[in-house]
Amino acid sequence: MGVFIIDTSRSPYAKLRPVSMSDVKLTDNFWSPRLDTLVNVTLPTMFTLLEETSRIDNFRVISGKVKGGFKGILFNDSDVYKWIEATAWALVNRRNDQLIKILSDVVNNVAEAQLPDGYINTYFYHRLGERYRYLRQSHELYCAGHLIQAAIACKRSGLCLRLYDAALRLGNHIVNVFNSSNLIAVDGHPEIEMAMVELYRESRDRRFLEEAVFQVENRGKGVLRNFRMPGSWDAGDEHFIDHKPLKDLREVPTGAHAVRFLYLMSGAADIFMETGDKALWEALSRLWVDVTGTRMYITGGVGSRYEGESIGGPYELPNDRAYSETCAAVANVMWNYRMLLATGDAKYADIMELALYNAALAGISLDGKSYFYVNPLASRGEHRRQPWFDVACCPPNIARLMASLPGYIYSTSSGGVWIHLYVASEAKVNLNGNIVELNVNTDYPWGGEVKVTVNPSKEDEFTVYLRIPGWSRGGKLFINGKEQDLELTPSMYVGVKRAWRNGDELTLRIPMPIELIASHTHVLANTSRVAIKRGPLVYCLEQVDNPGVDVWNIALKSTCHLEARYVKDILNGVVVIEGDAYEVRDQGELYRPINGIKVNLRHIKFRAIPYYAWANRDPGPMMVWVPLIDYYSKFANLI
Amino acid sequence: MGVFIIDTSRSPYAKLRPVSMSDVKLTDNFWSPRLDTLVNVTLPTMFTLLEETSRIDNFRVISGKVKGGFKGILFNDSDVYKWIEATAWALVNRRNDQLIKILSDVVNNVAEAQLPDGYINTYFYHRLGERYRYLRQSHELYCAGHLIQAAIACKRSGLCLRLYDAALRLGNHIVNVFNSSNLIAVDGHPEIEMAMVELYRESRDRRFLEEAVFQVENRGKGVLRNFRMPGSWDAGDEHFIDHKPLKDLREVPTGAHAVRFLYLMSGAADIFMETGDKALWEALSRLWVDVTGTRMYITGGVGSRYEGESIGGPYELPNDRAYSETCAAVANVMWNYRMLLATGDAKYADIMELALYNAALAGISLDGKSYFYVNPLASRGEHRRQPWFDVACCPPNIARLMASLPGYIYSTSSGGVWIHLYVASEAKVNLNGNIVELNVNTDYPWGGEVKVTVNPSKEDEFTVYLRIPGWSRGGKLFINGKEQDLELTPSMYVGVKRAWRNGDELTLRIPMPIELIASHTHVLANTSRVAIKRGPLVYCLEQVDNPGVDVWNIALKSTCHLEARYVKDILNGVVVIEGDAYEVRDQGELYRPINGIKVNLRHIKFRAIPYYAWANRDPGPMMVWVPLIDYYSKFANLI
Repeated sequence: MGVFIIDTSRSPYAKLRPVSMSDVKLTDNFWSPRLDTLVNVTLPTMFTLLEETSRIDNFRVISGKVKGGFKGILFNDSDVYKWIEATAWALVNRRNDQLIKILSDVVNNVAEAQLPDGYINTYFYHRLGERYRYLRQSHELYCAGHLIQAAIACKRSGLCLRLYDAALRLGNHIVNVFNSSNLIAVDGHPEIEMAMVELYRESRDRRFLEEAVFQVENRGKGVLRNFRMPGSWDAGDEHFIDHKPLKDLREVPTGAHAVRFLYLMSGAADIFMETGDKALWEALSRLWVDVTGTRMYITGGVGSRYEGESIGGPYELPNDRAYSETCAAVANVMWNYRMLLATGDAKYADIMELALYNAALAGISLDGKSYFYVNPLASRGEHRRQPWFDVACCPPNIARLMASLPGYIYSTSSGGVWIHLYVASEAKVNLNGNIVELNVNTDYPWGGEVKVTVNPSKEDEFTVYLRIPGWSRGGKLFINGKEQDLELTPSMYVGVKRAWRNGDELTLRIPMPIELIASHTHVLANTSRVAIKRGPLVYCLEQVDNPGVDVWNIALKSTCHLEARYVKDILNGVVVIEGDAYEVRDQGELYRPINGIKVNLRHIKFRAIPYYAWANRDPGPMMVWVPLIDYYSKFANLI
Repeated sequence: MGVFIIDTSRSPYAKLRPVSMSDVKLTDNFWSPRLDTLVNVTLPTMFTLLEETSRIDNFRVISGKVKGGFKGILFNDSDVYKWIEATAWALVNRRNDQLIKILSDVVNNVAEAQLPDGYINTYFYHRLGERYRYLRQSHELYCAGHLIQAAIACKRSGLCLRLYDAALRLGNHIVNVFNSSNLIAVDGHPEIEMAMVELYRESRDRRFLEEAVFQVENRGKGVLRNFRMPGSWDAGDEHFIDHKPLKDLREVPTGAHAVRFLYLMSGAADIFMETGDKALWEALSRLWVDVTGTRMYITGGVGSRYEGESIGGPYELPNDRAYSETCAAVANVMWNYRMLLATGDAKYADIMELALYNAALAGISLDGKSYFYVNPLASRGEHRRQPWFDVACCPPNIARLMASLPGYIYSTSSGGVWIHLYVASEAKVNLNGNIVELNVNTDYPWGGEVKVTVNPSKEDEFTVYLRIPGWSRGGKLFINGKEQDLELTPSMYVGVKRAWRNGDELTLRIPMPIELIASHTHVLANTSRVAIKRGPLVYCLEQVDNPGVDVWNIALKSTCHLEARYVKDILNGVVVIEGDAYEVRDQGELYRPINGIKVNLRHIKFRAIPYYAWANRDPGPMMVWVPLIDYYSKFANLI
């Protein structure tokens, strides 16, 4: 057993097997300090907020430790569970006695709130007659799912078993109520699917897997219409993805709640890895093509509409009014990780990396104390991270993702070891009994050179799979210093199969040029605009770096000289992109005939920073997509 | 007395006086057929829908003619009132006995539902204990305001007095309850302000004016927080414009509900014309600058957000996700008409004309049977007019605006007669007892030549003010065929003062070139895009006219040859704009490095039609703002 985020060790339809988080030690300068901050700042302050907002007292009320009723919003239990999960993962490679103590205390409070039949919910405890009657809005199985995931994290990380016992009882209760006792219903917010599959993986009790299948199979038949909570806000069946069964979806439902949709996809991918359901896989595949091909921000964010927090139509990707909820970015990582585990297809790793380094990571401040719920790609400067939210799903979600990062880096398959994310680290991987130490040295995401030293405990033939990122061009591979005559196709894994000996060294050199990225013409928000990308990182122009010119008025030209440079004293150290640009000085009128436009371009210098790092300094305008003056000249001699 | 939409005849702070609708006979080919359709199709079918949806039965329930309770949404009475108002105006110059009979019947049903104390509301009749308790959402004064406006329309058009009697009683009741009986409250949806000022103008009972002032003065103090309807959707104080007093607003509240805001502005403008309140005027002026300078679509539409149907931030003007509610366009016409009456300043007439011919007129189909609630400026073709809506504010609103069109064309002032809108028509205007016949001949909005024959009943000196539209350049004026040596400044009225004799002829020749319009650089939706405008009309590309190329992929070049041509057999006859353009064939990827972009421009021919006429034929994509390939070349030698 190991500390697996997702334990596909015995999943018959998963190509990849997990590597225990406890066997992956980060040695890098990018993620390690962020995880230190997570343990030292984020998780303790988040705990304080959970206390201050009565989220933990809600449990204590049930056990009688505190008097009073339920306080807050009905899904608040899930925030506690996600905090537990985050803390459990975070403590795997970072001991912190105080945090362990807090965790244990929180777990006890939760466990003590479990009813004899296994049910736990601090809101419905006070209205047990309404239990499971309002599943459209009640979030009961959503909360249950997060409890189960938290419990599994606690168990796998070796911190405590008490919550896992509670999870098993809760799981049994759910199995007894749904399906078997003829309550044909699903939860308005998917989450239980992932949790039940994982509970099955942990317990090998097949009823949990069946419950997950039941949830997916019964969704989309409009059953939730019978489970409306009176007076509750309701955005319609499509919002809940209850208008059509998942397997019948030909395209992403425009009105679907982004997080609900991506959680459902994640759960369905988990189910596929256990059942091999072909129709399910086909649905997942075509919906993945639709999301990534028409409805995803360049940051990997998903969700274009404030109304209903919904995904939006094809190519509908506004920048200033992007919703791109942090939870949706986290969910996009989760979904793509599962698709990757199922297939070993690098296209999923590409999206996982993209969402991780950009849309998701932007969700938390560098100091680990404040969060974005909404992640626009253009702002006039009013949009700032907040220490907390009434609906506080995002803070613990980004926390649990970051905490589990070591689990996303490596996998194994029958033939070898896979490296998905290039994070400087030391890993111990068990390949059919051969303990292989991998030593990854890299400056990634700032540089594209990755050195992997392979130290098998015994010399043996196996394959080391290195991911060639989809964004890369012209990468080169060296084995023990010798350049290989290989064309490294982007968005593939290059597998190096050989008899490995202690100290063998693989070097991957991926050029990281600055690239200007254009959009499909139907992305109305990005007409004649380009985004600046380098490696996995999307850049943005922030006002604080560009005094004297409104960054919304900066335009590039494709021939502008651009340079990448590491600056250690801002934003905890980042590679900035600097170069020549133009200021397009506006004449002020909202609308004017083009014949009246006067010459008003001014040559300037500009600086861009990684998108994830914006809004950590003085407030001001920010822009990802920058106008490109000679955009259409790229289209040739007609102009 | 005359048939005035707004009777500023005795308003001390209004510069302009109305001309009776009954003295204005349209002779044109643009509006006349639309008003025929209004009377023959729209108003009868709308009546049937009012019946079918129980909106009239709701009144019959109170008088006991029908058994049952209230059906529908709590503000449904207002739809009946707006239908009455529309019908009353429409019948002024078009007799239709059947419609008169229906109107009289509807009016009787309404009047019979009035309670002894003057209150009328078919929803709260069934819950009188809740009367005025939930003003934040109850729409009680909103409905009352529409009743009053309908009643005044019936009275002025000479159709019936019964509703006016009811309106007076209702007005008295409101005056007695609010303010005087210490109910310090306003209505969540402005409307009563305009109505009360007009009731004052009609009755000269100053208490009604005071009530309007009371409503405006007490708004913005958060008083509505005490009048929440339990379980009702609530978008916050700013939505209701109750977060700050109108006079303190330095800018348009981003979260303000567009229709609520514009109705409040209209009512405030009415108040100003009676009170001359300088602080009120200053607020109106600066908010007008903000709306028209940063938050208005090129169509004159207002409202950029679906969420809360709100106005949105400065320069936030998405095209595909424009909200631009038809009611907001109607309200923009109403507000600007009032600002125009107050000042005689042509800038208000410009916006009035713009909103009328574009955003508002798009709200109704050419056949008069279906309506847009939301008016996007780009569509993939799914957005189509509907015969009705559950929330049916828009259909009768566009109907009453169109029905009252003859009232918007002319005004008088102490010195003469003003022509605001160029609509071929015959008008009789009373200038201090001198009945002046005006005969306006024009092809407007298709052509810019306007001939005005002036026939005073006696020769006299007065001024004829002709509006020089803001969009015009190089207009010429001829008096009795003789060109005048005048520079006609756009967005001004040119006043021709002389001793007028029978048959004197003024000719205005305004060139109507095709213009490509650009936006402020901060309008992210319109980067490198232009809108095609000719005269007062905004154009759009509709798929049905452009076979073989997706109109979302059409781009223009500023040097493209463009031609305007009248085509009589489409869309009831329109001037289309045709010319050369390019197809930008997309390579399909959502994002791609610009270096990978291949040559893919193809020369094509395109056709554009007036925006108001879109979605009257086969469904398909539509686009107002078209990419301009050489957009930045307009910025000179740097490129």
